[in-house]
Amino acid sequence: MIKINSKNILVTGSKGFIGENLIKVLIENGYTVYGIDCKISNHRYCKSKLRYLYKFLNYDISKVNSVKKIYSKIKKINFESIWHFAANSDISKGSNDIDIEIRDTFFTTKYSIDLAKKLKIKKFIFASSSAIFGNTKKSIDENYGPCMPLSNYGAMKLASEGLITSNSDYFDKIFIFRFPNVVGSDNTHGLIYDMIKKSKKSNIIKVLGNGLQKKPYIHVSNLIEVLFHIYKKNIKQLINIYNIGPEDKGVTVKFIISKLKKLKIFFNKKFIYQEAKIGWRGDIPKYSYNIAKVKKDSKIKILSTKNAIEKTIKDLYK
Amino acid sequence: MIKINSKNILVTGSKGFIGENLIKVLIENGYTVYGIDCKISNHRYCKSKLRYLYKFLNYDISKVNSVKKIYSKIKKINFESIWHFAANSDISKGSNDIDIEIRDTFFTTKYSIDLAKKLKIKKFIFASSSAIFGNTKKSIDENYGPCMPLSNYGAMKLASEGLITSNSDYFDKIFIFRFPNVVGSDNTHGLIYDMIKKSKKSNIIKVLGNGLQKKPYIHVSNLIEVLFHIYKKNIKQLINIYNIGPEDKGVTVKFIISKLKKLKIFFNKKFIYQEAKIGWRGDIPKYSYNIAKVKKDSKIKILSTKNAIEKTIKDLYK
Repeated sequence: MIKINSKNILVTGSKGFIGENLIKVLIENGYTVYGIDCKISNHRYCKSKLRYLYKFLNYDISKVNSVKKIYSKIKKINFESIWHFAANSDISKGSNDIDIEIRDTFFTTKYSIDLAKKLKIKKFIFASSSAIFGNTKKSIDENYGPCMPLSNYGAMKLASEGLITSNSDYFDKIFIFRFPNVVGSDNTHGLIYDMIKKSKKSNIIKVLGNGLQKKPYIHVSNLIEVLFHIYKKNIKQLINIYNIGPEDKGVTVKFIISKLKKLKIFFNKKFIYQEAKIGWRGDIPKYSYNIAKVKKDSKIKILSTKNAIEKTIKDLYK
Repeated sequence: MIKINSKNILVTGSKGFIGENLIKVLIENGYTVYGIDCKISNHRYCKSKLRYLYKFLNYDISKVNSVKKIYSKIKKINFESIWHFAANSDISKGSNDIDIEIRDTFFTTKYSIDLAKKLKIKKFIFASSSAIFGNTKKSIDENYGPCMPLSNYGAMKLASEGLITSNSDYFDKIFIFRFPNVVGSDNTHGLIYDMIKKSKKSNIIKVLGNGLQKKPYIHVSNLIEVLFHIYKKNIKQLINIYNIGPEDKGVTVKFIISKLKKLKIFFNKKFIYQEAKIGWRGDIPKYSYNIAKVKKDSKIKILSTKNAIEKTIKDLYK
């Protein structure tokens, strides 16, 4: 039973993997969601029973003109908050072409801020990333510094954080959530998605890197639960930064592939590894989060990386 | 006596206050300097005895087309390093107009990186800023985090740091120097410059803020000495970040004005303060650096803020 609370939320990147999962939870909690995305492919919420709670705005928020156009369409709506999730999702591609990240990860933030100001939205929620930190052996908490991103994606997420805080006087509350790798059966990028895509084309599957890269993963539904819990808390501070992820140091690429092999589509497939320690230019082969802050402020249990991966594989099996 | 070492250095922002002082030292050390700046006003080194060691390239490095044009002019020159000092200098103006900072502080970095790559320059030196940190009561060392800049200038310096590190695999050595406020009798902006400018127009001088903002200052010639000393050291690390400033917590605006009053031009002037604790949107009223790292790596003594201010006033007196 959904209790309509007649409140509106604006989401950028609404057709992205995490955006879609976010919207599901917002709608289930009775929000009317206005989603902005440049992709025109059909959105699952346009088909669901709850489609009346989802309004899709097909604009590219990396473009200055989109701000005016979107504003003129929704200027009469009161929004409780904006969740800015639009960004480039192909980190490898962006590291070979700065312009992609400047446009899709930085300018999307710039114009989301502009749009939020115009619409007088007072809460700004931003999907930042572990990619802002760069290569480090330390366990990364919220006070970690200096940030020395190795991918242009990480650089432009860091730039976005800066632009949000330097405009913080326009807002009542800001949440900056720094995600690790996020998994789910409906992934639109990342290792598992990549392996499935490659399996359809060939019996020999090339894996990027030597397979020993070890990273923490969070399950998308678990992630959204945590975000929404913190969002609903009565936090008084203006700028709130959280590193969100599991407590463990993650699993290797080889571990994930050993799990994937149980899926029918990978029977008879051969996986080939490279010699490189990193999968692509800008890849961070190992890192781990100190998540004491999010554990203190959220009652939602964060699944271990192993459990997150297993849950994803189980969903794919179905 | 200048020993010509036939080595070339490229400097962006060559007509800026710090850029000009940097070039003086580079030329005195026998370097041939290629300076890039969009300002066309006469440069002092064009007039000096050493003008043959200075080549001025009048281009706006915030524009994509400038990269090609500059490249075609100097592609045959071997450069030891690029010192990227171009940026917006009016922080207050930039905080009310994001686009100024994106263009003059961020895109200048983006295209300086592009130019350095094209010219195969292997050392990149960047003038970053204490503005990246935001408001904090802590003593700020190089590992300080999270960076929450309050000015768009600070945000775009942070963005620049990120873009430099995410492209660090193109370079052999990177220096990121985070400056505090910099003073000198040839200042082209800042409090002292502002007061002198206002004194010429009226007997009543409006000071921004309540005068109690307390900040550390470094004297420009002292700053350049430290930078050049570290630059010449045989440091093996790829990315080297330094917070550069005096060891003290700085002086108040009122202190500086009490010193200025000794100058003839301020006799009979009345200074009026505002109520605001900050001078402008994005101003950081108080901060201090922990400079243990620079003290360890440089033998150059850093003057106290008081001495730096007094030296500036003395030079102005002359």
